Amino acid sequence: MGKSIVISIDVMGGANAPFSVISGLELFCKNNNSVSFLLYGRETEIKHLVEKTKYLKNCCKIIECETIISDDEQPVKAVKTGINSSMRKAVEAVKTGAANACVSSGNTGALMVMSKMVLGMLAGIKRPAIVSIFPNRSHGTVILDLGANAECDPQHLMQFAIMGVCFAKVVLKKEDPSVGILNVGIEEYKGRELDKKLSHMLAESNLNYHGFIEGHDLSEGTVDVAVTDGFTGNIALKVAEGVAKTCMHYMKIGFKSSLISKFGALLAARGLKKSFEIIDPRHYNGAMFVGVDGIVVKSHGSSDEIAFANALNVAEKLVKDKINKNINSMIEQHTTSTTSSIVSKIKHSLGLE
Amino acid sequence: MGKSIVISIDVMGGANAPFSVISGLELFCKNNNSVSFLLYGRETEIKHLVEKTKYLKNCCKIIECETIISDDEQPVKAVKTGINSSMRKAVEAVKTGAANACVSSGNTGALMVMSKMVLGMLAGIKRPAIVSIFPNRSHGTVILDLGANAECDPQHLMQFAIMGVCFAKVVLKKEDPSVGILNVGIEEYKGRELDKKLSHMLAESNLNYHGFIEGHDLSEGTVDVAVTDGFTGNIALKVAEGVAKTCMHYMKIGFKSSLISKFGALLAARGLKKSFEIIDPRHYNGAMFVGVDGIVVKSHGSSDEIAFANALNVAEKLVKDKINKNINSMIEQHTTSTTSSIVSKIKHSLGLE
Repeated sequence: MGKSIVISIDVMGGANAPFSVISGLELFCKNNNSVSFLLYGRETEIKHLVEKTKYLKNCCKIIECETIISDDEQPVKAVKTGINSSMRKAVEAVKTGAANACVSSGNTGALMVMSKMVLGMLAGIKRPAIVSIFPNRSHGTVILDLGANAECDPQHLMQFAIMGVCFAKVVLKKEDPSVGILNVGIEEYKGRELDKKLSHMLAESNLNYHGFIEGHDLSEGTVDVAVTDGFTGNIALKVAEGVAKTCMHYMKIGFKSSLISKFGALLAARGLKKSFEIIDPRHYNGAMFVGVDGIVVKSHGSSDEIAFANALNVAEKLVKDKINKNINSMIEQHTTSTTSSIVSKIKHSLGLE
Repeated sequence: MGKSIVISIDVMGGANAPFSVISGLELFCKNNNSVSFLLYGRETEIKHLVEKTKYLKNCCKIIECETIISDDEQPVKAVKTGINSSMRKAVEAVKTGAANACVSSGNTGALMVMSKMVLGMLAGIKRPAIVSIFPNRSHGTVILDLGANAECDPQHLMQFAIMGVCFAKVVLKKEDPSVGILNVGIEEYKGRELDKKLSHMLAESNLNYHGFIEGHDLSEGTVDVAVTDGFTGNIALKVAEGVAKTCMHYMKIGFKSSLISKFGALLAARGLKKSFEIIDPRHYNGAMFVGVDGIVVKSHGSSDEIAFANALNVAEKLVKDKINKNINSMIEQHTTSTTSSIVSKIKHSLGLE
């Protein structure tokens, strides 16, 4: 232990826990020796896995937690029954300062409610959002909200845009990320009132506002940050996952359809593997609960070791780049400029300016 | 001419018009000789194309229309300037009874506004919707609304469900199509108030209601009919188009990455082509404007001949199966059963039952 960054891990969360969690940690530590881990979960199930590894023995501490939050548990119920769960304890480690960030592949709703309850919200933020990266032909587009808020108002979305920009700066390494609003057309007159109001607010802000984008722009990487409500974002992401799976399904069927096709597949396998690696969702794994006063990274429920190691990468970057400090300062700056713009408009209308 | 079904065609609509429209008609007529066509557009651009065909000479009548509605024209403006446009005249042919259905690959918004204005609405229908088929691993899922209504109330969506069921009966040939509501999770407590209210209405209806579905269920074909508002539906469809294109893009890159891969691709090409044919969106082309008092089929703006021929197939099926008569009777049935259920509830609460 004693490394500069500490990450708390809900070792029991996710469909492949604890195996893929431990092997993901091992994979991460193979390339990175500046992070140590607090492992929350059942010691009997974890200890022997850690002991088998090469890189984890000296950078992990196991903390016994008997309770596990299941994936189908209702969030509100999970909060009540999960006081001593591996998830809750991992989040609490961020609150007490024992850890700089927390990573879990467990129940998204429960993790969100616990994070809000335990860590509270960043000053001035009305709602937390789930932010991640949509894999595409242009190195990924940050997208939020992915499901924390089924219904939003323009102010919520404006804050999401600011938080999305901060996330893109850290994870995409973009200096001045462009922002688009997901809509049914790029023309100003199209879409919902919600998005038209947000568009006015973004146009008047100091963010790099691109305008409306459509569903296919997520794949084209037209903007760095795509903003929408949690209902639309969640459906967009799951539709994308479903379609990608369908394409792979029919590619496999095509390859298996004859002996000649099978041989063709064998020859093309290496090229295809390398090519599809660019949009392999495992390399984009790791969604952040932005707006919460602490870094909580949600790894996909069915993460394997590669995906989990990537979620750890994301968590480390967010800690190093002090994302929440940046969000705080951008939100403050936006609030100040909005207030002074309102004051100036009032003064102008009264003829005082 | 003189065939049993007449379809009016906006020959000038779409990115590849008039060429793909005429070759699509030719392709359709190769396998079908029971339909004749009224071709609206510029005779100088159409006539020589028709004359070159084998099957169209005796089943087409060209009606000169100078004006063309462009794809970027605002719908309201298109209505004003397009009185004599090929699109408007093709829709009017349905109104006068000269045609049984109209097909256009032109500007969706303009076609929708013109259809509503010229044809009016079916009795009792509050809003029209755009309905089509989402290609998937289970022979397609009917989805609506795809963009006519950015904002909806539960009553609108209930009517969409009924119209979607009628469309699925005709196009998917399902006797009692199952209906799902697109949501962020399958659990009852998840999602927007709008969808929760709709869920109660569907559960009490005599439709085959499945429950909530998620984005990936569209690809899995979990239900026959997926209902959502036009904002979500439009984004889901365009996200799907974008992701499918991205997958094809990286497959091509993989195949081109080395000489060995190229040879592999050559060997596997036939198997892959056959396999991907199942989800080729051209074979699912042809969206209907349900709720309008007349059959109007929107073909994709960039349709080629295969896609356009499929839109003609859809139009013919809708005419043959009298879709609007079926919608009328199902809507009437639903209204009667809702009214009698309300009356019964009032009687019950007054102790009269």
